[in-house]
Amino acid sequence: MSNSLDQARYQLALANRIGAHEGVLDGFGHISLCHPTDPSRYLLSRSRSPELVEPADILEFTLDSELVTRSDVLPYGECVIHGCIYQARADVGAICHHHSTAILPFCIAGVELQPVFGLGATMGAIVPFWDSRDEFGDTPMVVTKPEQGQSLARALGPHAMVLMRRHGATVVGATLQEAVFRSIFSHRNAELQLRTQALGQVSPLSRGEAELAGSYSLRERPMGRAWEYWTTRLKKAGELPPHGPA
Amino acid sequence: MSNSLDQARYQLALANRIGAHEGVLDGFGHISLCHPTDPSRYLLSRSRSPELVEPADILEFTLDSELVTRSDVLPYGECVIHGCIYQARADVGAICHHHSTAILPFCIAGVELQPVFGLGATMGAIVPFWDSRDEFGDTPMVVTKPEQGQSLARALGPHAMVLMRRHGATVVGATLQEAVFRSIFSHRNAELQLRTQALGQVSPLSRGEAELAGSYSLRERPMGRAWEYWTTRLKKAGELPPHGPA
Amino acid sequence: MSNSLDQARYQLALANRIGAHEGVLDGFGHISLCHPTDPSRYLLSRSRSPELVEPADILEFTLDSELVTRSDVLPYGECVIHGCIYQARADVGAICHHHSTAILPFCIAGVELQPVFGLGATMGAIVPFWDSRDEFGDTPMVVTKPEQGQSLARALGPHAMVLMRRHGATVVGATLQEAVFRSIFSHRNAELQLRTQALGQVSPLSRGEAELAGSYSLRERPMGRAWEYWTTRLKKAGELPPHGPA
Amino acid sequence: MSNSLDQARYQLALANRIGAHEGVLDGFGHISLCHPTDPSRYLLSRSRSPELVEPADILEFTLDSELVTRSDVLPYGECVIHGCIYQARADVGAICHHHSTAILPFCIAGVELQPVFGLGATMGAIVPFWDSRDEFGDTPMVVTKPEQGQSLARALGPHAMVLMRRHGATVVGATLQEAVFRSIFSHRNAELQLRTQALGQVSPLSRGEAELAGSYSLRERPMGRAWEYWTTRLKKAGELPPHGPA
Repeated sequence: MSNSLDQARYQLALANRIGAHEGVLDGFGHISLCHPTDPSRYLLSRSRSPELVEPADILEFTLDSELVTRSDVLPYGECVIHGCIYQARADVGAICHHHSTAILPFCIAGVELQPVFGLGATMGAIVPFWDSRDEFGDTPMVVTKPEQGQSLARALGPHAMVLMRRHGATVVGATLQEAVFRSIFSHRNAELQLRTQALGQVSPLSRGEAELAGSYSLRERPMGRAWEYWTTRLKKAGELPPHGPA
Repeated sequence: MSNSLDQARYQLALANRIGAHEGVLDGFGHISLCHPTDPSRYLLSRSRSPELVEPADILEFTLDSELVTRSDVLPYGECVIHGCIYQARADVGAICHHHSTAILPFCIAGVELQPVFGLGATMGAIVPFWDSRDEFGDTPMVVTKPEQGQSLARALGPHAMVLMRRHGATVVGATLQEAVFRSIFSHRNAELQLRTQALGQVSPLSRGEAELAGSYSLRERPMGRAWEYWTTRLKKAGELPPHGPA
Repeated sequence: MSNSLDQARYQLALANRIGAHEGVLDGFGHISLCHPTDPSRYLLSRSRSPELVEPADILEFTLDSELVTRSDVLPYGECVIHGCIYQARADVGAICHHHSTAILPFCIAGVELQPVFGLGATMGAIVPFWDSRDEFGDTPMVVTKPEQGQSLARALGPHAMVLMRRHGATVVGATLQEAVFRSIFSHRNAELQLRTQALGQVSPLSRGEAELAGSYSLRERPMGRAWEYWTTRLKKAGELPPHGPA
Repeated sequence: MSNSLDQARYQLALANRIGAHEGVLDGFGHISLCHPTDPSRYLLSRSRSPELVEPADILEFTLDSELVTRSDVLPYGECVIHGCIYQARADVGAICHHHSTAILPFCIAGVELQPVFGLGATMGAIVPFWDSRDEFGDTPMVVTKPEQGQSLARALGPHAMVLMRRHGATVVGATLQEAVFRSIFSHRNAELQLRTQALGQVSPLSRGEAELAGSYSLRERPMGRAWEYWTTRLKKAGELPPHGPA
């Protein structure tokens, strides 16, 4: 068991760094992963910028977002985003919460994301909106309370991604690779949609195209090719996570 | 023969890395090259991101896109783009298929590319559009079947480049250098056209200017200068391909 | 005392380099810091680009912007920006003056900055405008005279940031970390507001959200996380300041 | 004499690399310098991308753009831009011809550059337009004939910079530092003007402000600070030119 947990922590640190290196995460945002053997727990770094996360930073939480790991380091303030979604969605294996510069304009303007190329269709045909103001009025624009996390999980529903008004996005995947792949290509889709709007009318994929392209892109071959690419880029930049002690 | 083939594989790996380093290719997209001595075959990497391609990754295909190299590695799913164009165009020596962030807005909005500066005129006066939906209805937005590749080749016709709606672009050249040069400068032209549209009315080159500038730019001196530049940039970044075994 | 002064000079050099590395400062712009033990003095580099500042470049000035350090190096021409604000605002511990590519369009168009995400709210609910032409007519677009610095300080009033028409921005903080944090995230906010405007209507944080988010973001945990992130990025780039002699 | 010539060649190679590193020059474009001791000659690299230019690449030309250096390397095709301007303007000591991504949209749309911040005012209050089509009809969009260079020099007149429709810009300076400083900051001004137009109405410097700010910025202190900055950035990137043999 210790072996698969070590590997999970390494993979999660790697995913954090890939998300940062490819422009989805910056100083803030975080990625979590279901515990590899205990479905009642999830893994998430201590409060640290994703680009810096090491295997040794990874903490264990219950699905109620109680810290299990004995440690005096600080967790992120927004753990409940992860716990509440894992509670609501047994099919979800990994979650990425971010505030990318491509996604945020859609969150600020309230403009719908539409799949504009094949890889963008991995975000699903519908990307719902959640506005913390609807249920909670004025807040510090963070999701720190269980009832807020539950509300967000309800807005996500069965979908792959939810936009959070004036805040960012939360993206889920069956696996860590899928959550990262979807986060990066929905971010690219947003950038393309934004650039296209400056040029002319956006003509998105049809519903049928989006469904076919989404499934096609989430197969092992394209996801594996991208994962090798992102990992090699990290390695060339000297940014692979260190192999930390268990 | 083995010698010229080794060299072709090295040059093709180099071209893939140049395309990635200069921003035309990312995790996806691919470049192919006619076999240096056997016109009934072409060379294309196994399924791998262009930035990582090594000479040892290069496979041989018939023009029907049957894999000739004995290997258990996976080819790209879209080989037929290359095979079908080589079948239709004896004058084509190399092909680049990509989804660059500058070209895609034109593919999504359906806005025509126009040559806006001398080097951009290398894409030719007319850049046709192809929409997979016209003949094939809803697809996963990839070109994987011979009849799709043939349809794309027909849309390309005698031109140097074809835009693929909601998908990307396919660019051809008499030589590898020409295909890369044209891919990079049509990408730059698209970026400039997009930026100009945000500023005021685009006033493109006249037809006469475009023809003269296209021919002028595709001579040995400018193409050689750019090739030295891109190769040196790769070298400084430590990204030249390794010299692989035959 | 010498110890805390050495540390202050190192921290100020570090802050200059962080501001440059994160895109707020370029060849021009500067950051100052109150003297750690003598409230009648402030610290500011000699005339040098922020990315290059070393602890040994840091000079001492009176609040009248008289150079105290015996030296024949040149100070910046715009010292009075710093001195006049320290004179007017006892609560200010550090000041950043910059001309970032995200902030300048707002200074040139005269468009109001609005908090569009939580971290952007650190700039405060109101960001006033100052136009040198109002009181001083045609100038070389620099703030070099005490009466100009005093006018700017009046425009800043009790706020955290002031936009300078056709010039740039001046941002203050209780501490060096706060001034840098606010400079970077107001810059990001401006970039997001600009990008959102190209997409649709900007729907900013409510006044209540802005106040809550501003306070939340300026706590130790987020500021410390960002500071570790920026410092580590500098370190990885080999850009940490040298430890200079006192 | 050999000493000052060696130094001039080194400085010119350095200037080419600075222009490339700061985003004004790419694979194409070139910078020339008056011969340090012989006013009837100028120095210009052989046909090579600016980022790669070495002191040993620098050739000598007469003001009629006849190559003096005995060499079998190829010169740039557009030497006459330099020769014809030196013939017309005894006050010009260095010239930069480029096609930057910020300047080109103005050349393509025919929109006037306006000084929008202090450093941008170094381009002068008026930046004239030249259109090769007016006198020469359809051309390959390059300036290769003496009569074309002379026409361009007439359009430049007494100004510091001329925009070339659908082509690029040519910028002059009394010294090499001034030509580079003006090229970089007019490029930045263009980028800011473009971004501001997307946000709201551009409100440029008044004529009086532009004159005062232009003179102020072209003094030794700001130009020297920027030169140290750009040179240090090159050095950190390992991109300083080698010291070539005379």
